[in-house]
Amino acid sequence: MTQINHNYTELQGSYLFAEIAKRRTKFIQDNPDAQIISLGIGDVTRGLPDAITKAMHAAVDELAEASSFRGYGPEQGYDFLINAIIENDYKARGIDIAANEVFVSDGSKCDVGNIQEIFSQDSVVAVQDPVYPVYVDTNVMAGRSGKFNKEKGQYENIVYLPTSAENDFTPSLPDRKVDLIYLCYPNNPTGMTLSKEQLKVWVDYAKANDCIILYDSAYEAFIQEEGVPRSIYEIEGAKEVAIEFRSFSKTAGFTGVRCAYTVVPRELKGKDENGNIVLINDMWNRRHTTKFNGVSYVTQRGAAAIYSEEGKEQIKSLIDYYMTNASIIREGLASIGLEVFGGVNAPYIWLKTPNGLDSWAFFDKLLSEAHIVGTPGVGFGQSGQGYFRLTAFGSRENTEKAVERIKKLSL
Amino acid sequence: MTQINHNYTELQGSYLFAEIAKRRTKFIQDNPDAQIISLGIGDVTRGLPDAITKAMHAAVDELAEASSFRGYGPEQGYDFLINAIIENDYKARGIDIAANEVFVSDGSKCDVGNIQEIFSQDSVVAVQDPVYPVYVDTNVMAGRSGKFNKEKGQYENIVYLPTSAENDFTPSLPDRKVDLIYLCYPNNPTGMTLSKEQLKVWVDYAKANDCIILYDSAYEAFIQEEGVPRSIYEIEGAKEVAIEFRSFSKTAGFTGVRCAYTVVPRELKGKDENGNIVLINDMWNRRHTTKFNGVSYVTQRGAAAIYSEEGKEQIKSLIDYYMTNASIIREGLASIGLEVFGGVNAPYIWLKTPNGLDSWAFFDKLLSEAHIVGTPGVGFGQSGQGYFRLTAFGSRENTEKAVERIKKLSL
Repeated sequence: MTQINHNYTELQGSYLFAEIAKRRTKFIQDNPDAQIISLGIGDVTRGLPDAITKAMHAAVDELAEASSFRGYGPEQGYDFLINAIIENDYKARGIDIAANEVFVSDGSKCDVGNIQEIFSQDSVVAVQDPVYPVYVDTNVMAGRSGKFNKEKGQYENIVYLPTSAENDFTPSLPDRKVDLIYLCYPNNPTGMTLSKEQLKVWVDYAKANDCIILYDSAYEAFIQEEGVPRSIYEIEGAKEVAIEFRSFSKTAGFTGVRCAYTVVPRELKGKDENGNIVLINDMWNRRHTTKFNGVSYVTQRGAAAIYSEEGKEQIKSLIDYYMTNASIIREGLASIGLEVFGGVNAPYIWLKTPNGLDSWAFFDKLLSEAHIVGTPGVGFGQSGQGYFRLTAFGSRENTEKAVERIKKLSL
Repeated sequence: MTQINHNYTELQGSYLFAEIAKRRTKFIQDNPDAQIISLGIGDVTRGLPDAITKAMHAAVDELAEASSFRGYGPEQGYDFLINAIIENDYKARGIDIAANEVFVSDGSKCDVGNIQEIFSQDSVVAVQDPVYPVYVDTNVMAGRSGKFNKEKGQYENIVYLPTSAENDFTPSLPDRKVDLIYLCYPNNPTGMTLSKEQLKVWVDYAKANDCIILYDSAYEAFIQEEGVPRSIYEIEGAKEVAIEFRSFSKTAGFTGVRCAYTVVPRELKGKDENGNIVLINDMWNRRHTTKFNGVSYVTQRGAAAIYSEEGKEQIKSLIDYYMTNASIIREGLASIGLEVFGGVNAPYIWLKTPNGLDSWAFFDKLLSEAHIVGTPGVGFGQSGQGYFRLTAFGSRENTEKAVERIKKLSL
C-alpha cells in the first residue's frame, strides 16, 4: 500500500471551523426552532458593491464573444489589476513596489498556506499565539512542527509568541533562532494592531537575525486609526525581510469571489544549500507559475473595480458598516463588564470569557443560551484559552440582536 | 540568510510555455508586421456558451444583494455542482461516485500539482514520457526526483515510461517498483488514448503492485470514438487504485474562468509509517480544506450550467468546432506527407518533425517561416524529441490559414 505523507498524522483534530460547524449543526438538529446568529467564522454578509458587480457583468460579456474572449491570463495576474494595486495600496502611501513583485491569487489562505514550501525543510517557524491556524497546520503538513506535545497543546519545534491581555497583545521577540516569523496585523483573532515603532522592532530583528517575516495583512482595510501601519513596507528596510499578504475577501466582500495578492520584494534574498544567493521573488514566481493558473478573469475585473472612484466610496461605506457593528459589539459587551479587545482597527472583537470559563465552554454556553455562534479563542492557540472571538461581519440587525441576547445572559 | 527549499535548484530552466512566450516575444519585436498564428499553448479561443454566461450573470446578481449573498462556500464545492458532476459524468455511465468523493477546484494544474503532497516523501514516481511537465516539476520541488542527469535529460529517481510511434504510444509497465503513476488520457501532448483493455492492464498492475494511479483526464470531453474509456472508473477495481482529475478548462472554455474537479474514491487507501490504514480521501480533504478556500461562486454556477440541457448542446457544438479544426490540421499535414498522431479523440495533433529536425529547430522554423507558434515535443520529455504539438483551439480561419502556410513550407 502506498505510503502517505506521515506528517499529516501529526495534525491535531479537525480544522477549527469544521468543529464549530459540527457543534452548530448538532445544536440546530436538536433545536430546530432556534434563531441562530453567527458571529463566528469571519465571513462577510453584505452584497457586493455595485461598482464591482458592474465590472463582473462586463467581464462575463467580454468572455461571451470570441473577439473579446480571454483564456489563460498571466499566472501572476493581469496588469490592469496589478497596476491598480501598486498605485493605490502602495504608491499612494509612498511605497515603491514593482509589477513583478505582486502576485495575484485566489485567496490569502492559499498563499499563506503555500509560502512555506519555498523555504528549507529545516526552517524554524515562529507564530503568534493565538493566531490564524493555517500557519501552523501547513507547517505541520510540511514536517517542520515536530511532535505535538499534548500536555502543552503545542508542537515541539514551533516557536510560539504568546499574546494576551498580560502583555497588551504585543508578542516578545523569539527566545531562540528562527527562520520564518508569521505576523498577522491587524491580528486575527485578537483584532489588535502594532504601532509603527512596534513593527519596526520586528523588521530590525529580522534584519539582524537573518529571518523572513511573513506579514499577513488581510484586514488592512479596517484600520481606522492614524499611526497604525497599513503595510509592513512603511517600515524602512522591510523590503529586505518581509513578504506581505493582502486579501480582497473582507475588504470588498470577496469571500465567495476569491481574490487576494502577495507582495514578494526583489530585495528579499535567501540562500541555497551551497550558499548561493537566491531571490525569494524568483522562487515564489516559479512555484506560482508551476502550481497555479491565475485567477478568474471575471474576478480580477471585479477586484480592479475596487480601486475606481466609485468602488472606493462603496468599499468605504461597506467597511464603515462593519466597523459600526464592531463598536456596537465592543460597547455592548463592555457595558455589562466584559473585558473586550480589538474591534477598533479590525472587524474582530476579542473578549475575555467571564468567570474563568474556558473557550469551548463559553462557546457552548453562548450557543445554547443565546443561540449565538462565535469562535473559541483556544482554537487559535493555547494563549487564546479563556478568550473568545466575535466578528463584526453580521447584519446590523443580527449584531444588535446578538448584543441584546448576550446582555441578558447570566454571566 | 534564510535557507530556501533546495529542491528548487534541481528544476531545469524555465517552464516550457514561458520559454515559448520568450521566443515568440523576441520574434514579434524583430518582425512587428508578422501575422502570428498560435497553435501552441493549449488555450481555447471561442466565447463562453450562452448557457454559462447567463448563469454567471445570475450569480453576480445574487452576490449583489445581501439577501442572496454567498460568502465562503464549502471548500470542496457546492452541492449543486457536485451533484451535476456525479449525475452526468459518472452515474450516466454506470459509475457510482459519492458527493464526498468529488473536490471542486480552480484548475487541474493546481490539483495535479498539489496531489503529490499527501504522499510520502520517499514515493517513487512514474510518468509517461512525453507528458504535461507539471507532474515532474512538482515532484522535483518536493524532492522526489533526485538529481537531473544532463546527458539523459532526465531525473535520476523518476521512472519514465516512454511513448513514441515505435510503441504505438502505449507505455510499457514500469520495470521497477513505483508508488505513484501519472497517466494522462486523452494524452497531452500526443493526443493519443488507451482502449479499455489497455487501461485495465494499468489498473490491474496498480492493484497487484500497491501503487496509485493519478489519472489526468482533462481532455475527456474530446473523446469521439466508442470504446475509449471516459473515466478510469469504467475499469473494474479502479476505485481502489486511482484518483481522477477532470477540468472544465477545455471542455467549456474555462481556461480564464478556472474550474476543475478531482475524484478521490473512499476505497482508495494508503498507510502511514506505523502501518495504519489511511483513507486517501481523508488526506486530500484535509489538504484541500487547509490550503484552499473554494472556487468562486460565480464560476461554480457557470460550471453547473454546463450540465443543463441547453449547456450540453452548446458544449457539444463547441467541441465539434475544435474537433473539426483537429481534422483540418491532421488531414492537411498528412496530405503533405507529415506523420501525424492524435487529433481524433483529443484537441492535440502530434507530428513527427520532418527530416530529423529536433523539436526546437522545428519550432524556430515554423515561427520564422510560417509565423506559427507550436509546442516543441521535447518540452514534454526526452521521448518527445523530434515531435511537435499543434492544438486545435484556434479559430477556424486561423487553423485553415496555418495549414495552408505549413503546406507551402519547404520541408
